[in-house]
Amino acid sequence: MKVSELFTRTSKTAPADEVAKNAQLLIRAGFVYKVMAGVYAYTPLGLKVLENIKQIVREEMNAVHGQEIIMSSLQRKETWEGTGRWDDEVVDVWFKSKLKDDTEVGFGWSHEEAIMEMMQQFVKSYKDLPTSVYQFQTKLRNELRAKSGIMRGREFVMKDMYSLHATEEDMDAYYEGVIKAYKRCYERFGIGASTFVTFASGGAFTKFSHEFQTICDAGEDILYVNDEQTVAVNEEVLDDAAAELGIDKASLQPVKSAEVGNIFKFGTSKSEQMGITYMDKDGVQKPIYLASYGIGITRVMGVIVEKFADERGIVWPESIAPAKVYLVSIGAQGSEVADALYDELTSRGVEVLYDDRDARPGEKFADGELMGIPYTLTVSDRLVEAGKYELKARATGEVNLLTRDELFASISTS
Amino acid sequence: MKVSELFTRTSKTAPADEVAKNAQLLIRAGFVYKVMAGVYAYTPLGLKVLENIKQIVREEMNAVHGQEIIMSSLQRKETWEGTGRWDDEVVDVWFKSKLKDDTEVGFGWSHEEAIMEMMQQFVKSYKDLPTSVYQFQTKLRNELRAKSGIMRGREFVMKDMYSLHATEEDMDAYYEGVIKAYKRCYERFGIGASTFVTFASGGAFTKFSHEFQTICDAGEDILYVNDEQTVAVNEEVLDDAAAELGIDKASLQPVKSAEVGNIFKFGTSKSEQMGITYMDKDGVQKPIYLASYGIGITRVMGVIVEKFADERGIVWPESIAPAKVYLVSIGAQGSEVADALYDELTSRGVEVLYDDRDARPGEKFADGELMGIPYTLTVSDRLVEAGKYELKARATGEVNLLTRDELFASISTS
Repeated sequence: MKVSELFTRTSKTAPADEVAKNAQLLIRAGFVYKVMAGVYAYTPLGLKVLENIKQIVREEMNAVHGQEIIMSSLQRKETWEGTGRWDDEVVDVWFKSKLKDDTEVGFGWSHEEAIMEMMQQFVKSYKDLPTSVYQFQTKLRNELRAKSGIMRGREFVMKDMYSLHATEEDMDAYYEGVIKAYKRCYERFGIGASTFVTFASGGAFTKFSHEFQTICDAGEDILYVNDEQTVAVNEEVLDDAAAELGIDKASLQPVKSAEVGNIFKFGTSKSEQMGITYMDKDGVQKPIYLASYGIGITRVMGVIVEKFADERGIVWPESIAPAKVYLVSIGAQGSEVADALYDELTSRGVEVLYDDRDARPGEKFADGELMGIPYTLTVSDRLVEAGKYELKARATGEVNLLTRDELFASISTS
Repeated sequence: MKVSELFTRTSKTAPADEVAKNAQLLIRAGFVYKVMAGVYAYTPLGLKVLENIKQIVREEMNAVHGQEIIMSSLQRKETWEGTGRWDDEVVDVWFKSKLKDDTEVGFGWSHEEAIMEMMQQFVKSYKDLPTSVYQFQTKLRNELRAKSGIMRGREFVMKDMYSLHATEEDMDAYYEGVIKAYKRCYERFGIGASTFVTFASGGAFTKFSHEFQTICDAGEDILYVNDEQTVAVNEEVLDDAAAELGIDKASLQPVKSAEVGNIFKFGTSKSEQMGITYMDKDGVQKPIYLASYGIGITRVMGVIVEKFADERGIVWPESIAPAKVYLVSIGAQGSEVADALYDELTSRGVEVLYDDRDARPGEKFADGELMGIPYTLTVSDRLVEAGKYELKARATGEVNLLTRDELFASISTS
């Protein structure tokens, strides 16, 4: 991509009503556009980051034999009435509307009931179990307030997976496998070391659910972590979980954190509510065990912005950055060399955002840093004369003057 | 993919209320699941077809320098009031709802106004033009009736692109380029020879728009085509278009067709309504020229099913099929060879749907044909003994007995 061809522009200011740092920076850098409070469009750079996050999650869900599908946003009232979740008193985030014949419809804020209703058509026998399906769905939630930027929106992208099992043991074993898959996701996003599987409230169905919490000042949760960072507990269940684990809660230190995933065992509760069964080997109809697994894709993007950003802007981990290299040309000779370098790097599969604009060097450097591209590669007249390339790492600020061979070795291995 | 691992099942029957052949076949083959009238979920096989279609369109839109974005489903009332299109009397397909504070919101049935409102933030000067953006968006339309399966739904995926220009000449030139890009899309979908650029009604803004119409018995339009197939005109504008083109309308023959794309020059009308201008070289603010370009992704999928299906089921063109080869194993020795062949073909990048089920051969063949996979590859005990592989083409029924070398040569080149 060439910066001169992008329709977006960086900006020194964000909308006055935007209080969240993630949204302020993403808007200023030209990654998202605010449609209304809690509703954002994703421009080419923002969409690239989203797709990179989705692809990592897709690979890890496929690795645990998840099958990708896409459900609908439009939801039937009948689908949700059986479990009592159509009622606005029970679920207060529904957007609803009506068909022309006055039939009420809802817009998917979640998809457990819809997925189970569909799976019921296909899963009849113990031979059809276990099975696991997932989707990347645009969820619509009528949130009262929306002040956290893309961390909590009225419209957002979530990966939700559902696994169906004949027995509790099978569900438990699969659930443990998904915990490992989730850990690999956070590792690959670049937030593995600061993300913890935590005990959280289980709601009506089970004593605890598991959340994945990332240490982050912008988080709305408080996590209690031990010195060895082997145990993490959500504040809301601190007493219960400490008792369950047999640990002294004084040994746990509080830290601010943001939820980046939530997994949950329904057991047979949802199937029993919905009357969803399978025929077991013994010829008896039995309720299906269900577990669900969510990662807020747009939320993860927001948390990563909040966590790594510095006073100069966003800092993307390499795995999800919209490009690996921000190429800056300075001067006539520099531009000529940069043009050729851009073509060569691109043909070698290195993703480059080339700032080919007729702009001041300082403006180019500032934009590359605001956009958070992992490496700024500078080609100026002076550097060309010296036969060198300047490579600066966004996260550390480390600068290296490299020969051409060193540059290619560095970029393809880093 | 292995058929034994897919959660979907083929079925001999479709829902009784489903009258459209495309939906009947797609449901029976396990490609889509009906949520309600006009609303479908896409299972792994169906999603694969959709993604294949999207990827072709993405490549062609990128080739004309379209920049991919994703807008929101939620729409502000104010965005659409300026052009009079918030009014249900004017646009009768809105789904609308309300935020908690009673603010009215709509769900995107189209995105011209939303995109132009966004572009206004970035496009300020003649230097920022031309520019072109597109998205693959889930559109929601409150259709009175929904009886055409995935050809016309209440929820569907559309690629919509919008190009912005400083002058009419520039818009016209770009528009011609997009016509060529669209032709390449239909060519690559496998419907190029039967798809025509046609004159259609232009609505309020221009005398004609252009539709892309594919000859198809299930189509809801009538197309008038000359013998040389160089001129195609929609029935609704037959008299006007014949006069404009200076041809005798008796020279045109009627044929049933389905719309698979629509492109349209707004000129400056939309910008004038919305007050969207750019600063020209002469320092004067001028309205921006706009053209829009739509392809219904799910619709194209439905039209292709309708057009090519035969009494045995779906017939996918190779470019969009969910797999190239349907591998059928028969017998113990056949299964052993098929297992190894599956691994080898997959590792060579050939997409294979492997029917490894313990089922009758006739059932496997019937499912492969119902699913429309381009080639059925059979490995039976008898064939193994003879050192042969049977390859049958879905579209033509042609059967070839091949040696191993011939098989690999055939599959990698066909």
